[in-house]
Amino acid sequence: MTEFTFDLLATDSGSAARRGRMTTRRGLIETPIFMPVGTQGTVKAMLPEALKEIGAQIILGNTYHLFLRPGHELIRNLGGLHRFMNWDRPILTDSGGFQVFSLGALRKIDEEGVRFQSHLDGSSHVLSPESSIAVQEALGADIIMAFDECIPYPASREYVAESTARSGRWARRCKLARSQGDGAALFGIVQGGMHPDLRAGSVNELLEIGFEGYAIGGLSVGEEAALMYEVMDNTLPLLPRDRPRYVMGVGTPENLIEGVSRGVDMFDCVMPTRNARNGVLFTSFGKVSIKQARYLADPLPVDPDCSCYVCGNYSRAYLRHLYQSNEILSSVLNTHHNLHYYLGLMQGVRDALDGGRFGEFKKDFYRKRADNPSGT
Amino acid sequence: MTEFTFDLLATDSGSAARRGRMTTRRGLIETPIFMPVGTQGTVKAMLPEALKEIGAQIILGNTYHLFLRPGHELIRNLGGLHRFMNWDRPILTDSGGFQVFSLGALRKIDEEGVRFQSHLDGSSHVLSPESSIAVQEALGADIIMAFDECIPYPASREYVAESTARSGRWARRCKLARSQGDGAALFGIVQGGMHPDLRAGSVNELLEIGFEGYAIGGLSVGEEAALMYEVMDNTLPLLPRDRPRYVMGVGTPENLIEGVSRGVDMFDCVMPTRNARNGVLFTSFGKVSIKQARYLADPLPVDPDCSCYVCGNYSRAYLRHLYQSNEILSSVLNTHHNLHYYLGLMQGVRDALDGGRFGEFKKDFYRKRADNPSGT
Ligand SMILES: [Zn+2]
Ligand SMILES: [Zn+2]
Repeated sequence: MTEFTFDLLATDSGSAARRGRMTTRRGLIETPIFMPVGTQGTVKAMLPEALKEIGAQIILGNTYHLFLRPGHELIRNLGGLHRFMNWDRPILTDSGGFQVFSLGALRKIDEEGVRFQSHLDGSSHVLSPESSIAVQEALGADIIMAFDECIPYPASREYVAESTARSGRWARRCKLARSQGDGAALFGIVQGGMHPDLRAGSVNELLEIGFEGYAIGGLSVGEEAALMYEVMDNTLPLLPRDRPRYVMGVGTPENLIEGVSRGVDMFDCVMPTRNARNGVLFTSFGKVSIKQARYLADPLPVDPDCSCYVCGNYSRAYLRHLYQSNEILSSVLNTHHNLHYYLGLMQGVRDALDGGRFGEFKKDFYRKRADNPSGT
Repeated sequence: MTEFTFDLLATDSGSAARRGRMTTRRGLIETPIFMPVGTQGTVKAMLPEALKEIGAQIILGNTYHLFLRPGHELIRNLGGLHRFMNWDRPILTDSGGFQVFSLGALRKIDEEGVRFQSHLDGSSHVLSPESSIAVQEALGADIIMAFDECIPYPASREYVAESTARSGRWARRCKLARSQGDGAALFGIVQGGMHPDLRAGSVNELLEIGFEGYAIGGLSVGEEAALMYEVMDNTLPLLPRDRPRYVMGVGTPENLIEGVSRGVDMFDCVMPTRNARNGVLFTSFGKVSIKQARYLADPLPVDPDCSCYVCGNYSRAYLRHLYQSNEILSSVLNTHHNLHYYLGLMQGVRDALDGGRFGEFKKDFYRKRADNPSGT
């Protein structure tokens, strides 16, 4: 069993950006990285081979969804999530906490864990630190996450403090609950809302427990981008240099570039896949809403600078037609392009960091967008 | 410009089955053949590369749908339907008649053609023999079809006779309307309902006009399979041996085998693609409804004898999970398997005809189904 390691390969002279490499039991992951989200055992509309073609190194699975349907025991009996969905590269699973907490009236929380009703059939279940780890291990993920509460925004300082303390106690139970020798890495999740002192307290507690990597949770929950960056600015320097740092559920291409600049190594977000299904495409010059009438007869590819399969073979007019006609291929092609854009952006970031020119890369990223403000 | 030709390569000793080859301006087509349907400029849920991978030689486009959205002029201006949808092999377009006539109260027919209201926005349009040919030529199809009425079933003999006579006059106008030197082949369509004498009269009229190929329309419209085969038995021997014969809108795997046995060269049907989206899969041992609870934890591929990408990589349990979860990948994988099955069946037919063992092939086809009556 390969031990999980993280190597810091290079740092940027003009920012906190880092170039790193994770070693997992299913191979290497070059960072900084964006991880496509595969909620229900599939990255929506993407074949695994297409994900590899566009350079996906690791994907996400959602514990909450797979726990309810088809069930983690079933997946384990069929050889694990990798075999189930035909994906042999690393998988990271979330803890289920985010979904369970967002069920609102359908869930009840106490020190033990969360009792909730399935959004599918109303059936009653419990997720706790121990059961979340057990589910993630049954799925066979290569990186698993501690069970925590993703605190809504805004929330009272009192609630944030109480929730963060509980998530800390749960993190300790997760560490105890993990199997020895399973080979999966366990990441802790920093909470603390938008309060620097609570974030610092959360970091201290997690460091005392000790994890293979550290995530910052509770961002991209409705706060302004400036506040998100402020929390990153306050929190990231407190995390150990020799461990990977993962900002969960973030974000736009701009958020990724800003996160990298502040020292983030890992990102995930449904934005490229969900937007694709809504006809919104990401490009080097900003967003393109392909449903617009202006693209009716447009023979150009979505992004003339894009090297992806979609831009190499299809016009904006065709993509608009597929979207207007509610064709499945619309989601397939749009998702392919958007994920290629996100993964290509991070490849560009890594290349720039390798070449010692991240500052230039970042300037160029913003200039291209400013030059074409008519994007959306 | 390649001239359209049809060569009869072999005939079966025990039936009317034929092995043939069409030469079109976009390459050869080996017959007997099944043609996947690409209604709106895409074979639903299939990338063109996947269609090639499973051996699709020619696909269908629908004149009615493309005429309304995005419009044939727009497609012509973008380089034609092949370029628009990234498909460089032959395309056959229907005439639009089938869809226009099925609009019911929304259409009005006279000698000139059919005035109808769009199912999309209620806008008013006319399709006539001349405009149908013009649209099909604008799309750039390699095989185009005469504009006719697909007569509903049941219908009075009087109506069938009147409609068939009108379709005959329209066929003559289609022949006159086609561009000289365009290079697309024009097929006539035999009508006549379930009446042998009206079918014979229709054949005679079409032969007098002269077409590159002959289709039998108005089948698979609700009649019993035995009656469909009876019409084939009566009509096919009247058609010239040296021209391709196409039975439109047919059908089940059994219909294809029976049609081949009677001398049919070409088939098309939405059955494999539409059924796929509804979770119904075709296999060598019959139909599989993947939503059934019995497949919940089934580690086997859909069809252990199938060599397709889906059966090589995914379990029934996974396909059931995707279907139950309403995932796009469900349609993608199910369609891939079903079209592979249909195209593989016809490849098997061609190989058997080449090897002089079609009778054996047909027996084997039915035996496998009888051995596993629990399929569905
Ligand atoms: Zn692209
Ligand atoms: Zn298969």
